[in-house]
Amino acid sequence: MATHALDPTDTRFGLDRRVMLPGPFALASGQSLAALEIGYETYGTLNADASNAILVCHALTGDQHVASVHPRTGKPGWWARLVGPGLPIDPARHFIVCANVLGGCSGTSGPGSIDPATGRRYAMAFPVITIRDMVNVQARLLDHLGVGVLQAVVGGSMGGMQALDWAAAHPARVRNVIAVASAARHSAQNIAFHEVGRQAIMADPMWQGGDYAEDKPPAAGLAVARMAAHITYLSEEGLTAKFGRRLQNRDTLGFGFDAEFQVESYLRHQGLAFVERFDANSYLYITRALDYFDLAAAHGGQLAAAFAGTKTRFAIISFNSDWLYPTAESRRIVRALNAAGAAVSFVELESPFGHDAFLLEAPEMNRVVDGFLRAGA
Amino acid sequence: MATHALDPTDTRFGLDRRVMLPGPFALASGQSLAALEIGYETYGTLNADASNAILVCHALTGDQHVASVHPRTGKPGWWARLVGPGLPIDPARHFIVCANVLGGCSGTSGPGSIDPATGRRYAMAFPVITIRDMVNVQARLLDHLGVGVLQAVVGGSMGGMQALDWAAAHPARVRNVIAVASAARHSAQNIAFHEVGRQAIMADPMWQGGDYAEDKPPAAGLAVARMAAHITYLSEEGLTAKFGRRLQNRDTLGFGFDAEFQVESYLRHQGLAFVERFDANSYLYITRALDYFDLAAAHGGQLAAAFAGTKTRFAIISFNSDWLYPTAESRRIVRALNAAGAAVSFVELESPFGHDAFLLEAPEMNRVVDGFLRAGA
Repeated sequence: MATHALDPTDTRFGLDRRVMLPGPFALASGQSLAALEIGYETYGTLNADASNAILVCHALTGDQHVASVHPRTGKPGWWARLVGPGLPIDPARHFIVCANVLGGCSGTSGPGSIDPATGRRYAMAFPVITIRDMVNVQARLLDHLGVGVLQAVVGGSMGGMQALDWAAAHPARVRNVIAVASAARHSAQNIAFHEVGRQAIMADPMWQGGDYAEDKPPAAGLAVARMAAHITYLSEEGLTAKFGRRLQNRDTLGFGFDAEFQVESYLRHQGLAFVERFDANSYLYITRALDYFDLAAAHGGQLAAAFAGTKTRFAIISFNSDWLYPTAESRRIVRALNAAGAAVSFVELESPFGHDAFLLEAPEMNRVVDGFLRAGA
Repeated sequence: MATHALDPTDTRFGLDRRVMLPGPFALASGQSLAALEIGYETYGTLNADASNAILVCHALTGDQHVASVHPRTGKPGWWARLVGPGLPIDPARHFIVCANVLGGCSGTSGPGSIDPATGRRYAMAFPVITIRDMVNVQARLLDHLGVGVLQAVVGGSMGGMQALDWAAAHPARVRNVIAVASAARHSAQNIAFHEVGRQAIMADPMWQGGDYAEDKPPAAGLAVARMAAHITYLSEEGLTAKFGRRLQNRDTLGFGFDAEFQVESYLRHQGLAFVERFDANSYLYITRALDYFDLAAAHGGQLAAAFAGTKTRFAIISFNSDWLYPTAESRRIVRALNAAGAAVSFVELESPFGHDAFLLEAPEMNRVVDGFLRAGA
């Protein structure tokens, strides 16, 4: 299979790829998709024994542009601090794959895709999906790319959930898992925040039951959803350090409802910018997939049973100020992996930046990822 | 003055009172109100030397019905566990006053009141108000009731902020302050959550720039605002204990967007119920007043200076699982009071219920309030 990867004319490899795979593709819900489109990118070259493939999984609002400039925003890849030349995940040494998740809005089948049965956008007729479905789509993509066994699956936040789920769903296909700032289930509080976001979107009359025109999205509702979520990505300490009670472009209170505090202005900007790059229905579907995630559920609540007999090595990394997926959730994973007899290393890193820390400059995280991957190559 | 209170025909006293006081009433913003209406309740009788008056201050969405059945919801008073016969604040011993705050929607002047200048509802033409303005309205009410010096001002959450501000604004009029689950300032995170709520309301087309008809409120936006806020009133542990990942009236996932998890169903109910009893514009004004609250701001950031020379005794109570106004904020108040040489007692109580703990059964809180009031009577 590796010969394909060495052929420079092979259009399966490179940036900004799309592939349409034939269906039916069965989903956890019992429904299926007639066909499956996947938007993805690859970096580097698959080596002769096809042993250097690393799958990078993105978070809720991420995409396949892990280390390439985002075509819409012009910003660097979302994990360009970890993936790239000279970095722990290095195209000079690794064959790196990153795909937009199922349900997404960046090239992979989702509510914005055309339903072949009707010739119109699925919208809310798209089937509800799960993290497991996302993982199975990635497996289909790897088949297509000629990758059998992954050297590693690496992800943060929802990406970490996919990485963990890979080890549970396809244990023979993944030698190493790195899950950063993640959890093996969504907590009641996690679900609650997502429900607020969904209600904000669905309360927006522009949502139209999901049938909005592409150029008339429920922008106000989606912006509110993003604002609420964004607070959970930051720590109280981080917000205080970054903004405190400082005013925006003024010296005294304005006694009005404009964005007078810097933190208000920042949040409003986050909401507005998000609307430019993300689809409201995708937000509904992906948050739902997250809420449904509970690796132990299929095993009578015994998380260790999800990893029974695993040969995969695990690195679990948390950040001490992350209150969205706090260290306690990582410890729970580590206890389960220990109970399953798995090789697991765990570290809680210090950071004032809350959940977002995994996307920011994090030299210690890079050292842990690098050391773990080199030891288990 | 006490003779008024002993006269059973004096209509100033009792449940569900209203009074219109002549203006102009000057506000912190520099604006003023031409007249001031106040909705309030009193319980018990002012004693001969007018020394037994206790002012109870309510939180963001509270009202004057501290210990009487709410006329609209039919529910017991919001602090009926602390205020009532045989309780720490007892109408048999105390003359208890509770007033709807300025900007509220339960009888006191607010954005829903008629602007005498136009004969129409103020809506967003109502001036922006502060916690200090709320306190000054209460002072005017106490003048009207013949109360000079308060035995105590007691409040939780925003009520605690009013209690603290009383000691700063009218030090000679308050002998004791009890501030529960409160803070001397709004943090960046507090402001951020309020901004999400305000944006949700203002994004609702029914809001109409504030000029909605009373029977056509921006219900969807207000419900989303309430849902987001409600999460901050509960602890992660409390949510997990109360709901966890349990499903609502079903055994398996439904793969849809109905409220499948109990926590979703609960939050939706909270949102809908809130719309029945609260006004959206009032929510905007009162959250703004909270965001503006920073007792140290007028003193170059030195909180102790706000209490310089105070003779008032203080009891500061926090709950260990409260992440809205966490114990650290109470400790900051205590340090400032110590620096100001004030008599202060502080206790952090254990509770799994987060910020909401102050409204729930809390025997330890009751013991602290009772002991503190009796010692300083």
